[in-house]
Amino acid sequence: MDPKEYDLPHDFLHWEGDAAEDHSGPFFYRLTDDGIETTFRIQPHHCNSGQTVHGGVLMMFADYSLCVAAIAGTNESCLTLSCNNEFVDKAVAGERILGRCELIRRTGSLAFVRVQLMVEQRIILTSSGVIKRIQLAKATSD
Amino acid sequence: MDPKEYDLPHDFLHWEGDAAEDHSGPFFYRLTDDGIETTFRIQPHHCNSGQTVHGGVLMMFADYSLCVAAIAGTNESCLTLSCNNEFVDKAVAGERILGRCELIRRTGSLAFVRVQLMVEQRIILTSSGVIKRIQLAKATSD
Amino acid sequence: MDPKEYDLPHDFLHWEGDAAEDHSGPFFYRLTDDGIETTFRIQPHHCNSGQTVHGGVLMMFADYSLCVAAIAGTNESCLTLSCNNEFVDKAVAGERILGRCELIRRTGSLAFVRVQLMVEQRIILTSSGVIKRIQLAKATSD
Amino acid sequence: MDPKEYDLPHDFLHWEGDAAEDHSGPFFYRLTDDGIETTFRIQPHHCNSGQTVHGGVLMMFADYSLCVAAIAGTNESCLTLSCNNEFVDKAVAGERILGRCELIRRTGSLAFVRVQLMVEQRIILTSSGVIKRIQLAKATSD
Repeated sequence: MDPKEYDLPHDFLHWEGDAAEDHSGPFFYRLTDDGIETTFRIQPHHCNSGQTVHGGVLMMFADYSLCVAAIAGTNESCLTLSCNNEFVDKAVAGERILGRCELIRRTGSLAFVRVQLMVEQRIILTSSGVIKRIQLAKATSD
Repeated sequence: MDPKEYDLPHDFLHWEGDAAEDHSGPFFYRLTDDGIETTFRIQPHHCNSGQTVHGGVLMMFADYSLCVAAIAGTNESCLTLSCNNEFVDKAVAGERILGRCELIRRTGSLAFVRVQLMVEQRIILTSSGVIKRIQLAKATSD
Repeated sequence: MDPKEYDLPHDFLHWEGDAAEDHSGPFFYRLTDDGIETTFRIQPHHCNSGQTVHGGVLMMFADYSLCVAAIAGTNESCLTLSCNNEFVDKAVAGERILGRCELIRRTGSLAFVRVQLMVEQRIILTSSGVIKRIQLAKATSD
Repeated sequence: MDPKEYDLPHDFLHWEGDAAEDHSGPFFYRLTDDGIETTFRIQPHHCNSGQTVHGGVLMMFADYSLCVAAIAGTNESCLTLSCNNEFVDKAVAGERILGRCELIRRTGSLAFVRVQLMVEQRIILTSSGVIKRIQLAKATSD
């Protein structure tokens, strides 16, 4: 998956191996000095009967964003425990969604994360989650 | 869209005209004496890299279920304001998700709804939402 | 604390040792064949400027209810990770709130719980939470 | 209610007429150039049996903070529709909670708001809500 095919900045990366995210997305991420950002381009198959981006697609992308933020650039795996979403505004096909992720806290076993989905300066969705960290060689528990 | 193609009970119905739900689903619903039920069959393209159903797909289906419950068999439209989700258990490709919807309350402008997603007797996700009702000929507001 | 002082059924029990719950409550619980129930009587100091029960008091009581349900009659301790609330209807001083708790699932380390707060047949608040179990002699982790 | 009695900065204000907030608080707020801030001093009667601030007290204060942010310095009234909370860290009696509020968006009928509760640089709770605006002379609806 290449971000340029979707007219997205070329330094965004793609996470390989998640069939659902590729089918319903595709979604991209990058690590910046200001934290982790995620993005996707709204296409007609992301839209509901009102021709705006489907809330379910936004929540799926929010979940993706929360997990990318939770693992914070490592190769850990993770599991979402809770995900809360407020639908602030609409967006339409052709617009680019940018996710601004915040890693609130990581304990030994959990991550607390938030994301705001934006189209330029417009906030589209706010989301927060509690994520369970799954470390490959788990030595400690919180 | 025909529920039989997905080995689902033939009395489930399909809502026409939502490209996102057809692309990421398809999802189905029916009105029973016990309330509204929703369903879909988990396919490989609904799964994450761990080969279990993606949390984002479950939230998208939960949002679909909440909206079907909110309009309660009418031809109203609606808008999700908030959607909260707890990820209780895993499910895998081939399993059938059943959504048991509860219409908690409808006011003039809002609906409060909940849904439990099940695989047989196993609860997979709990979700709740506040939904804004959009009536075609809006005469009153709450 | 005696439930009869608040005109509550005499078989409700009081949890000793939580200063905040006694100050902002008091709250009571009982184990029934249908699951765990919680209750309190709305008093003037539970009400907002509109003379209805304050949403914060309802959330505090919901959190109490979720934790009572999570430990399920044991003497475990617990910690709320997330708590989501929808404010469905109003209630006034003198009315009795009944919490109908549901233990959705307990894993080795977590509990998934829901509660509906009712005044007779009227639903006042729906709440759901993810709770971390804290076992006194912790032998396993999930 | 005087913030100085609780060793809080003297420019914080008190909202008169809410019995529940005075009983379970008291809570204070101020409008700054960076947005709305709220505060309270944790006292023994705010604490649970573990001698840390009770999650229910934090949610009640979060709800207060969300509503103060939602009305944004006006004399509007408001009603919380949904309030979601993640419990990030502990705090103890004597510590001062500061709420950093964000007004995400106001429409004609709704406000989308978030708050982070902090003790110095430590995040204690994240909360978000959808609030219904109640205007005294309501001319338009969203």
